[in-house]
Amino acid sequence: MMRGHLPGAALAAAVLILNLCGLAHAASGEDIALKGNAQGATPCSDCHGGHGEGQPDAGFPRLAGLNAGYIAHQLASFADGTRPNDIMGPIAKTLSAAEQQAVASYFAGLNPPLAAATTPAAPDPVAAGAVLAQRGDWSKGLPGCGQCHGPGGTGVGSRFPRLTGQSAAYIASQLLSWKKGARHDDPIGLMKSVATKLDDNEIKAVAAYYASLPLAGSTAPVTAPVASTTSPAATKPATGAATFTPPPESAIPNNKFGDMVRLGETIFTDTQHSAKGFVGNNLQCANCHIDRGRLANASPLWAAYVVYPAYRAKNGQVNTFEERMQGCFRFSMNGKAPPAGDKVLVALQTYAFFLAKGAPTGVNLPGRGYPKLKKPAKLDYAHGQEVYAAHCAVCHGTEAQGQSSARGDVVFPPLWGAKSFNWGAGMGSITNAAEFVKANMPLGEGGSLSDQDAWDVATYIDSQERPQDPRFAGSLAETRKKYHNSAMSMYGRVANGVLLGEKSPPSGILPQAH
Amino acid sequence: MMRGHLPGAALAAAVLILNLCGLAHAASGEDIALKGNAQGATPCSDCHGGHGEGQPDAGFPRLAGLNAGYIAHQLASFADGTRPNDIMGPIAKTLSAAEQQAVASYFAGLNPPLAAATTPAAPDPVAAGAVLAQRGDWSKGLPGCGQCHGPGGTGVGSRFPRLTGQSAAYIASQLLSWKKGARHDDPIGLMKSVATKLDDNEIKAVAAYYASLPLAGSTAPVTAPVASTTSPAATKPATGAATFTPPPESAIPNNKFGDMVRLGETIFTDTQHSAKGFVGNNLQCANCHIDRGRLANASPLWAAYVVYPAYRAKNGQVNTFEERMQGCFRFSMNGKAPPAGDKVLVALQTYAFFLAKGAPTGVNLPGRGYPKLKKPAKLDYAHGQEVYAAHCAVCHGTEAQGQSSARGDVVFPPLWGAKSFNWGAGMGSITNAAEFVKANMPLGEGGSLSDQDAWDVATYIDSQERPQDPRFAGSLAETRKKYHNSAMSMYGRVANGVLLGEKSPPSGILPQAH
Repeated sequence: MMRGHLPGAALAAAVLILNLCGLAHAASGEDIALKGNAQGATPCSDCHGGHGEGQPDAGFPRLAGLNAGYIAHQLASFADGTRPNDIMGPIAKTLSAAEQQAVASYFAGLNPPLAAATTPAAPDPVAAGAVLAQRGDWSKGLPGCGQCHGPGGTGVGSRFPRLTGQSAAYIASQLLSWKKGARHDDPIGLMKSVATKLDDNEIKAVAAYYASLPLAGSTAPVTAPVASTTSPAATKPATGAATFTPPPESAIPNNKFGDMVRLGETIFTDTQHSAKGFVGNNLQCANCHIDRGRLANASPLWAAYVVYPAYRAKNGQVNTFEERMQGCFRFSMNGKAPPAGDKVLVALQTYAFFLAKGAPTGVNLPGRGYPKLKKPAKLDYAHGQEVYAAHCAVCHGTEAQGQSSARGDVVFPPLWGAKSFNWGAGMGSITNAAEFVKANMPLGEGGSLSDQDAWDVATYIDSQERPQDPRFAGSLAETRKKYHNSAMSMYGRVANGVLLGEKSPPSGILPQAH
Repeated sequence: MMRGHLPGAALAAAVLILNLCGLAHAASGEDIALKGNAQGATPCSDCHGGHGEGQPDAGFPRLAGLNAGYIAHQLASFADGTRPNDIMGPIAKTLSAAEQQAVASYFAGLNPPLAAATTPAAPDPVAAGAVLAQRGDWSKGLPGCGQCHGPGGTGVGSRFPRLTGQSAAYIASQLLSWKKGARHDDPIGLMKSVATKLDDNEIKAVAAYYASLPLAGSTAPVTAPVASTTSPAATKPATGAATFTPPPESAIPNNKFGDMVRLGETIFTDTQHSAKGFVGNNLQCANCHIDRGRLANASPLWAAYVVYPAYRAKNGQVNTFEERMQGCFRFSMNGKAPPAGDKVLVALQTYAFFLAKGAPTGVNLPGRGYPKLKKPAKLDYAHGQEVYAAHCAVCHGTEAQGQSSARGDVVFPPLWGAKSFNWGAGMGSITNAAEFVKANMPLGEGGSLSDQDAWDVATYIDSQERPQDPRFAGSLAETRKKYHNSAMSMYGRVANGVLLGEKSPPSGILPQAH
């Protein structure tokens, strides 16, 4: 490794030689970071610290451990002005694309301790910030920060950077930049939208919360009293009017019943781990049931709970709520239904019961399921693909593979393929998917797509391979006849040259899964 | 057998001889019936027909097939004037007690076809009568006739005569007699009370219904439209104010969901047969949950449904409604809990869900369980025994063995002994039993006993042997410590010289049971 003892000209010559040798990236990243470059870039370390640890009090962000793609993207944004910055703009412009990548990789590989801030966050905003960061405030369509940046803010991919390690001052300044429109390099306008929904105190709180977390991003528990202060219970729908509001988290009692409610909520939001033996893909219950099953028009648990037992044409029987949930595990979670009476089902049922407190039994409440959409004249796969690329891929991935956080939490669910819901799931119906997308996608931006966009992107998503229907009846034709006899299922149909279902990955929990 | 060819004096002599020989009963019964007696009694057959078939149009009741004890009791009542009757009074007075028994046994053994009435009942009152006869009208505390006379009115024991086979005219005339107070030989005033709650049209309807039934008492189904006309859904409590009314039976839809509701109701009211493998005693769900789970303050299903899942100290867990019902089968029904997800439980849950339609989830509704009673200074076993003899024994039997109808339906549940609930049941708590009795017993006469009477009779009932607690922990002391550690359980205590629990019959479904 090169150390900082050579004069400038000698360094430039050395860089040139290394570039010519094709060895430039590793070396020049560190050199640029510590020495700047020959085109006049000052060393990154002047502001961001000798190990990329940042200067919390001065508002210079920590670069160490950020996703390399994210850093490179920021440098490009500084250079092209989409992230306007008087200091970084001129510096970024001196870096070639290869240099941007090199310096990004360099910082991504560092892991120094946290830089100490002289202004530790007061506990109150931290606590209030925890609610916003983890839960959001769906009464104004605000997702929790962690829903994109990962639980604990450890970062997801190249577009949702790590938040832990940054100072409160830096986080707050960036949120204000998005809000004011000074910064606008965010994917599909998500940060602009989110920041606009936050008032100044909320910005301070959420910034203080993330500044208080260790680098590994342990998630502070959201305690009931805190939850009550920000009223996350109000769950107004993006479209359609809901008449019912579930009780706030603060109403969960501190007794054994409350313990079961909390266990149910944990299973609902962290299904991967909390119901491990029953999940065969990378989904959580809360992926489709937004705001932890609270949000109207996103299949809220409270609306479902009160209408079961009910007859379901899907299996030709009267199903209890428990049996309905077993179906979720078998199809949507592509797993194995917990046996009747299993604690997983008891806990989920108790959680749903808690959310439904006060709701009238047996009554179809406004906000149940998704708002109906009028069927369009035409479903357009190609246009759906365009919609997907423009609005969905940034989170769900270009191949809908989903994305996990830096510490391994699945954050964005896969929408097709071996780790998504199987052909038997309700979301495999184009109608259901279109209605869900229209009301709820992109996250926090429900209602922003046109009806036709929603139908087409649903058509595109539901025209891809996914795990086989576990009720497979021996042939595609027979399975389609028995379980997919609707124009809204692409199962057994050809889309984009593929006979769907023919090469479906096996359904259920596979030996290699988890 | 003697035939009617001897002159009167010879007959009297023959009777005397037979009496002296100790062979009088069988012979004199038939003779009295067909010939009268020497003391001036006209032959029974003059009015009641040659085979005891009655004369429907003239209002003379059918005697054939009535319970012998019942007939003998009527003759005694005619004789002592508690059943005043210008014709029967003088005749009954000529009969010795032995002659009353003899003629009663004679008629009890006959089984001629129904006598044809020239005035067939119109269908409408029959249908309306079916509801009253089978369901009663609990909005005015009126039990169904069949709840004492047996389903189909085939009669129960010596105090609740067979109603089938009687003419509408006779049934109506008797109801009017009770109502007017002309007849008052009814056990614990039950018929006076019941008849007073019926208006003239209802009397006609219920009389027409029973007159329309075959002798074997097939029960006409209560159809939904009929049920709706008499609004049996209103279930006002005997004490305490209920704010919720379950939907009427007519609201059960004619689809597969409705089929499951109806199956649940059938299991609830005919648990013996409809949940056969899970019941180890002679009880039905509807024995404790009056008016088929509808009646407030009698543990109505609608109030229970909406408060589960709930934590129960009984098993230290959060129980779903399904698990709560499993407990009923294990303890109250002294049987075997149907496995989670079993159709029996699904049907019962669906029925409870239907009854709870519109009730707020998770809210403790007025009318739930039984109204609380203030604990008295003293519990008096001996006084409880007196209360039992005076108010309970007529239905439940002197040894609380319960009573079945002539065709074998269990009508009155056993309150202790091998065919009753076991030591683990909720009704084994003196508090629960006292509160149930106070609010609901005698049937249709809830609130008529004093609080002290209710406490004492509950103490008496719960101080008798019954099937062992299925959680038996190896010794009485250990079982008491773990499951009966309350002054309100007599388990493991001495009552009336018996160490309760020590000689309990085994719990559960025994090989010889059913």
